[in-house]
Amino acid sequence: MAGTVNPDLRKERENASFHPEKVTNFLYGGPGVVKRKRELESLVLNDPDFQSEDLNFLSREQQYETQMKKSILMVTKGEKLKITDVQDRSFYTSAVSGSDSFSFGLHVAMFLPTLYGQATQEQKDKWLKMAEKYAILGTYAQTEMGHGTFLRGLETTATYDPTTQEFVINTPTITAYKWWPGGLGKTSNYCVLMAQLYIHGKSYGPHPFMVQIRSLQDHKPLPGVTVGDIGPKFGYGSVDNGFLAFNNVRIPRENMLMKYSKVEPDGTYVKPPSTKLAYGTMVQVRANIVVNSGRVLAKAVTIATRYSCVRRQSEMKPGHPEPQVLDYVTQQYKLFPYLAAAYAFWLTGQTMMSVYTTSSNQISKGDISALPELHALSAGLKALSSWVANVGMEECRMACGGHGYSHASGLPRLYANMTPGATYEGENTVMMLQTARYLMKSYNQSLQGEKLAGSVAYLSGVQPVPAAGRTRNMLDLGVLCDAYRHRAARLVHEAAVQLRNERQAGKDQPDAWNAASVDLVKAAMAHSQYFVVKNFAERLTDSTLDSSISDVLTRLCQLHALHGLVTNSGDFLEDGYLTGTDVRQARRHINALMAKLRPDAVALVDAFDFPDGILNSVLGRYDGNVYEHLLEWAKASPLNKTDVHQSYHKYLKPFLEDNRAKL
Amino acid sequence: MAGTVNPDLRKERENASFHPEKVTNFLYGGPGVVKRKRELESLVLNDPDFQSEDLNFLSREQQYETQMKKSILMVTKGEKLKITDVQDRSFYTSAVSGSDSFSFGLHVAMFLPTLYGQATQEQKDKWLKMAEKYAILGTYAQTEMGHGTFLRGLETTATYDPTTQEFVINTPTITAYKWWPGGLGKTSNYCVLMAQLYIHGKSYGPHPFMVQIRSLQDHKPLPGVTVGDIGPKFGYGSVDNGFLAFNNVRIPRENMLMKYSKVEPDGTYVKPPSTKLAYGTMVQVRANIVVNSGRVLAKAVTIATRYSCVRRQSEMKPGHPEPQVLDYVTQQYKLFPYLAAAYAFWLTGQTMMSVYTTSSNQISKGDISALPELHALSAGLKALSSWVANVGMEECRMACGGHGYSHASGLPRLYANMTPGATYEGENTVMMLQTARYLMKSYNQSLQGEKLAGSVAYLSGVQPVPAAGRTRNMLDLGVLCDAYRHRAARLVHEAAVQLRNERQAGKDQPDAWNAASVDLVKAAMAHSQYFVVKNFAERLTDSTLDSSISDVLTRLCQLHALHGLVTNSGDFLEDGYLTGTDVRQARRHINALMAKLRPDAVALVDAFDFPDGILNSVLGRYDGNVYEHLLEWAKASPLNKTDVHQSYHKYLKPFLEDNRAKL
Repeated sequence: MAGTVNPDLRKERENASFHPEKVTNFLYGGPGVVKRKRELESLVLNDPDFQSEDLNFLSREQQYETQMKKSILMVTKGEKLKITDVQDRSFYTSAVSGSDSFSFGLHVAMFLPTLYGQATQEQKDKWLKMAEKYAILGTYAQTEMGHGTFLRGLETTATYDPTTQEFVINTPTITAYKWWPGGLGKTSNYCVLMAQLYIHGKSYGPHPFMVQIRSLQDHKPLPGVTVGDIGPKFGYGSVDNGFLAFNNVRIPRENMLMKYSKVEPDGTYVKPPSTKLAYGTMVQVRANIVVNSGRVLAKAVTIATRYSCVRRQSEMKPGHPEPQVLDYVTQQYKLFPYLAAAYAFWLTGQTMMSVYTTSSNQISKGDISALPELHALSAGLKALSSWVANVGMEECRMACGGHGYSHASGLPRLYANMTPGATYEGENTVMMLQTARYLMKSYNQSLQGEKLAGSVAYLSGVQPVPAAGRTRNMLDLGVLCDAYRHRAARLVHEAAVQLRNERQAGKDQPDAWNAASVDLVKAAMAHSQYFVVKNFAERLTDSTLDSSISDVLTRLCQLHALHGLVTNSGDFLEDGYLTGTDVRQARRHINALMAKLRPDAVALVDAFDFPDGILNSVLGRYDGNVYEHLLEWAKASPLNKTDVHQSYHKYLKPFLEDNRAKL
Repeated sequence: MAGTVNPDLRKERENASFHPEKVTNFLYGGPGVVKRKRELESLVLNDPDFQSEDLNFLSREQQYETQMKKSILMVTKGEKLKITDVQDRSFYTSAVSGSDSFSFGLHVAMFLPTLYGQATQEQKDKWLKMAEKYAILGTYAQTEMGHGTFLRGLETTATYDPTTQEFVINTPTITAYKWWPGGLGKTSNYCVLMAQLYIHGKSYGPHPFMVQIRSLQDHKPLPGVTVGDIGPKFGYGSVDNGFLAFNNVRIPRENMLMKYSKVEPDGTYVKPPSTKLAYGTMVQVRANIVVNSGRVLAKAVTIATRYSCVRRQSEMKPGHPEPQVLDYVTQQYKLFPYLAAAYAFWLTGQTMMSVYTTSSNQISKGDISALPELHALSAGLKALSSWVANVGMEECRMACGGHGYSHASGLPRLYANMTPGATYEGENTVMMLQTARYLMKSYNQSLQGEKLAGSVAYLSGVQPVPAAGRTRNMLDLGVLCDAYRHRAARLVHEAAVQLRNERQAGKDQPDAWNAASVDLVKAAMAHSQYFVVKNFAERLTDSTLDSSISDVLTRLCQLHALHGLVTNSGDFLEDGYLTGTDVRQARRHINALMAKLRPDAVALVDAFDFPDGILNSVLGRYDGNVYEHLLEWAKASPLNKTDVHQSYHKYLKPFLEDNRAKL
């Protein structure tokens, strides 16, 4: 039967109401992009040089080495193939790394962009070509053992010495050790270091410095530099996240990245024009996390949905064959909301990217007015999407029963590698509170009669009042968007009231903010969810959308909105905006929508267009031939190299023989 | 500063309102037990023989070998020390294995108990002593690649051959491969095999058989036996979960475990007296999972709470020192509900154990009337507790920020090893539906005027009606228990109505059940939560409880109930039982309770009494000296054995030199 598709999966595909290719084109932005994506993927997946043993079978050191080899191949082959376009590179890189990391990930994602963005022209001339051509390998050393999201707390110091025109770099405490940067432990020979700038005994806050940390001759740490690997983590087995400490390491004045702030030879400090400029990069990085949250959820749902059609279990009706587990409504209720969420975040990320592109055009013209709103919105969306992806990946794993727990499923590794998205680039709760801060500010402005624009426009205008007694069609996307808007506006209002009450009870502003923070997070969450639902609904109004796919996408959008509504029904019921009848109706609609989505489930995950070589999952195989490959995979496991493991001779044999002798 | 306690943690301990020892005694059942527990733990933790390298630094094969060595030591030393009492053994074993597994876990937890429970006296005489003395090593081979929770679907066959008075064991398909049993892959030489019994062509369902799978001479698989390791998993790195297949393997008739069912020499089948007898063991196993869920949550909360007192971050007030992160209300809102849940499940598990003990006395006297209710209740509680523990462990991990993601925190390993509790011993959703089935049956009986007893008694009597307009004290545990009871009763009623509606709409019983299953799970969940809340409240009425600890435990109980209430507020609001004002009041009480619990948080986790050697967490150290030990731990990581990793010479050096040459 090798080569043929599992008959259950074949039937699923035959019975779908639409052609998945149409949705693929919609998701990726047209058939041209999809064609290019597949070309690039097959360059990797059909190239025997890129084949390697399953990383799950390897020790961490072997994983590090294997990914290093692949990453170098990728760079050299990519250069020969002239893959330079950003999108092309991303397709190509994804195909190499699957759900793991490219060894020079931070070099590309942080080191180079920081040089582009913050180096002067002379600095670019000096370092950029070397960096672009991988003649030096860099990382971005910001986080310390004692400080992450709170940048101002960094302790590493760069003290300017005007006599030699050098900065002296020091790690004054254990907590000042740089800790976590990817590729820092063993791979990089350079880094952009964030350190507290001191001039003539005065602190100027964190600034970026270009610092060489290992010799270009023999790769040994330079004098005064202590560098190493921070040890094994939940995921990222192949990545050498590192630590780094300095003892009076001197670098020339010209090594401070001086596009914005400057230190002149005599020690005069020149301030940057605006601190908000850094927001642009942050928005882009967060938009990427939102896109990626959609993508990892899409992978997890693809695996779980296909497997749930192949897996048959239990006896629903006496004498009947065992049903496919996807026919259980409880299984649908686990997977379909995350299928819908994957689409929702995929589209949210796209919108954020396009808003970012528009606004970065404005920024380049010197207009940064759109940035604060975008920055605040992106914080909440980053947090929301990475949280939902976390929970969703695990829900998908557990929906695959025992086999989901095996590394053969690909799901544990996907989760372990993706879950830090809730922490890095700003811890999620801190992110939600950033959004909340903007919401409070906007709310107060609207109270003072200012008209708000953009994503917070709904906070101005009349305070929405509960509309009890109205009957509503809970499937209507307009009704649903209204409900989410009402909830967000109400929770923003309630958080503001709570904040005011705490102030009136005598707390100062920071204590009041802290006391109200649970409500503030709740408000920011509701605001972010409203944006996602509204954006999904708006994308469906695209007039170029084929009706066969707009029907099914509308169902997904309805399910997404209704599921969020029943999951948080208290928020909608608390002030009587929705009635118990509305919520009950919403639950019945969810059941009906799931029944309608059931025959399209496999086509909807096929539409994400992940080739097997990227999914890396025995359970999620396109051909559905799960069981024979599970056995084959297990047989390749290192513990099976010999029938009798060496520990038998070392430990078990004497133990058993002793015990037998004592009988 | 080595040896001294971190000053922040010291202050926390000084400021607690009660002595943690009192709570420890309450949790473990008295000072005598606590003393014994500590003696047994120190036997292991102070014994240099039990020290080993951190498992997180080892490959899977090394982990397997390390745990094997430790497990053998544990058995031999335990025998010399005459540790035979069940509770003593459990303390001793926990100290050896930490959050990992003992290599002979299934031998002790399933193989031996099955022989005790299902072997005849002659069979016991033949095997039990060998098994008890570890002269043979067994496992319990039930789950197959294609079937887990649905026992009747098992495909392995045991066909009786009356001519030779043997059973012929076969694995007819790939999906019939035994898959998952712990210790099966490399360690065990025997197993209890669950196989479909066939006699004269007729199937009699799954029965247990004693089967030797490896030679006692050289440990090689016996002829006709294919056995191996199923490959790496999310967790359980040191355990050889295995696969097993048979090709015409013959075993004597006497190898079927015949205490209940029998096959006579001529092939006559003798039925067991009752199929409900197996319920007893299941209840016990599930009670253990509930206890363990409380325990793992307690570990995770201990780690996160201590670390949150040591970690200082951000600037709450300009010019003030960085606050301890536990002073952030959002951090309290992450941790304290799980602190409360850990206590709640710990106490629930104890109650289940004592109910089980009472009822097993009845069972031994032939009275099995209590079993069905207990069995149904235990299913829901197993599911609820393992789900909450899963979510809670991850919440605690993420509450530790980046360092939570490091294996140094102990949290990823704790999670990866404990999360399968949601799947094994009955997949959680299937468990909830078992509880729901019992609830529906009881509900229908009560409609017919029958009086219900035990945990479902509240379903009989008058249907509770919404009591709008009443003002309630939402801190009153009686009011809270009433609210949970009302919600459970209402959701059971609604699920029953939904089921009836589906039937009336023309669906047959199985389809109606499936269509209503989301509501049925919801009802079973509410029933289980009600039990947990009520049990917590009841345990506080213990008159021997010291008032200093009953105050703080009452706060935990209130927090547990209120947090569940606001998280599921829609359930309480939907029919108007609670008002928006009640829910708002509940939220304010939560804030006030958290503020009151804040000074006692460290004492409340200290009371769980996990020694450092069992917690295995740099972040959760009793002395709070986190950062210096984080560095020390990292330096011991295998990637740091050399300053320059070998892959530099193999891959990186030629790559960098080539690139430099091309500049």
